[in-house]
Amino acid sequence: MDIAILGGTGDIGEGLALRVAYHTSHDVLIGSRDAQKAETKAAEYETELDSRGTEVTIEAGANEDVATLADVVVVAVPPYYVDDTIEYVADDLDEGDIVVSPATGMDRDDDGFHYAPPPAGSVTEHAASAVPEGVHLVGAFHNLAAGRLANLDADLGVDTFVVGEDDDAKGIVTDIAEGIEGLRALDAGGLANAAEVESLTPLLVNVAMHNDGLHDLGLELK
Amino acid sequence: MDIAILGGTGDIGEGLALRVAYHTSHDVLIGSRDAQKAETKAAEYETELDSRGTEVTIEAGANEDVATLADVVVVAVPPYYVDDTIEYVADDLDEGDIVVSPATGMDRDDDGFHYAPPPAGSVTEHAASAVPEGVHLVGAFHNLAAGRLANLDADLGVDTFVVGEDDDAKGIVTDIAEGIEGLRALDAGGLANAAEVESLTPLLVNVAMHNDGLHDLGLELK
Repeated sequence: MDIAILGGTGDIGEGLALRVAYHTSHDVLIGSRDAQKAETKAAEYETELDSRGTEVTIEAGANEDVATLADVVVVAVPPYYVDDTIEYVADDLDEGDIVVSPATGMDRDDDGFHYAPPPAGSVTEHAASAVPEGVHLVGAFHNLAAGRLANLDADLGVDTFVVGEDDDAKGIVTDIAEGIEGLRALDAGGLANAAEVESLTPLLVNVAMHNDGLHDLGLELK
Repeated sequence: MDIAILGGTGDIGEGLALRVAYHTSHDVLIGSRDAQKAETKAAEYETELDSRGTEVTIEAGANEDVATLADVVVVAVPPYYVDDTIEYVADDLDEGDIVVSPATGMDRDDDGFHYAPPPAGSVTEHAASAVPEGVHLVGAFHNLAAGRLANLDADLGVDTFVVGEDDDAKGIVTDIAEGIEGLRALDAGGLANAAEVESLTPLLVNVAMHNDGLHDLGLELK
């Protein structure tokens, strides 16, 4: 399966790109608003993977150019760019394609980080309102620490939550996620349940801030 | 330390009472609006603990009668009764006492459970506004599955999050929580961070609803 990661040059994009390319047989494509930057980072990822004995080609280009080639498009951009990014590539998506939204909205004050969803209720639901008809929006990968994800020496052993309205699309994203070693994908229900998933991210950051020795946190349900 | 559990006849109250009495040396007192009901349940808890070789006396009585005897008062009542319960026992609390709030607000619709905080931002902050001056409000035990807590054969191996403004009070509650075998207490910061802690509870319920074989879920940060 061809998986494009828009914003694939950013922290979470890098982590997802490396993990998918390293642990699964899917083809990864790196997108960015700046095609040259995407190509540079894709070459870095190839070098990193090659040093571990994984020889893969990672295509790269402008967001719209990789989106048009992919079956699954991960929108790994900051929350306030999610809808614009989806709308920008909307014409490049085919019916049946899947758009994956991992973003969550946070504010920071003196106490720490707080969940700050858009009026739609969650960033995931906001993203869902931006996909064209016939394209499925699935929320996943919201609570993964980017640094830990990008460090292929780090064990994961954590869960990610999958939300969406189309069971087939959720199943495909679940399979991709579970192809990553140490990542378990749990069904958290429909898009309306995304807020409770997204609000975990500020909690993980707050706990890392307040407890010595804990950082780059994930979680396992048990 | 004397720990009163108001609403100690309910599900989460039962679990906390049994675990604290079983795993720690603290004295547990069971409170209820109905003193007779409190006494009946306390006797049941004593029998359960005695069957496991733990002989303890669990005092019981009306909420106000056990609150006045305790150093730490856990308000294990439904979220919409939290402030009334605290105000009802306010005159029985001494300066320096600690009130612990484990409640979280949830709504249910066709998609599942959703976090539904009061206008204060969280049930924990709402509870904090009800405690008298000089009494410290600490949020803890929000995300524990009552059935698993009450089953002393069940391993926990999960985390609970502690929020509050007074570090000494948080430290005391942390020590009580960590006295329970298999429970790790993590500092999640000030009261303003309570919403992200509370909203985990509906997520755990949603995941249990949507994934075969998962129930009575807790979580471990890692």
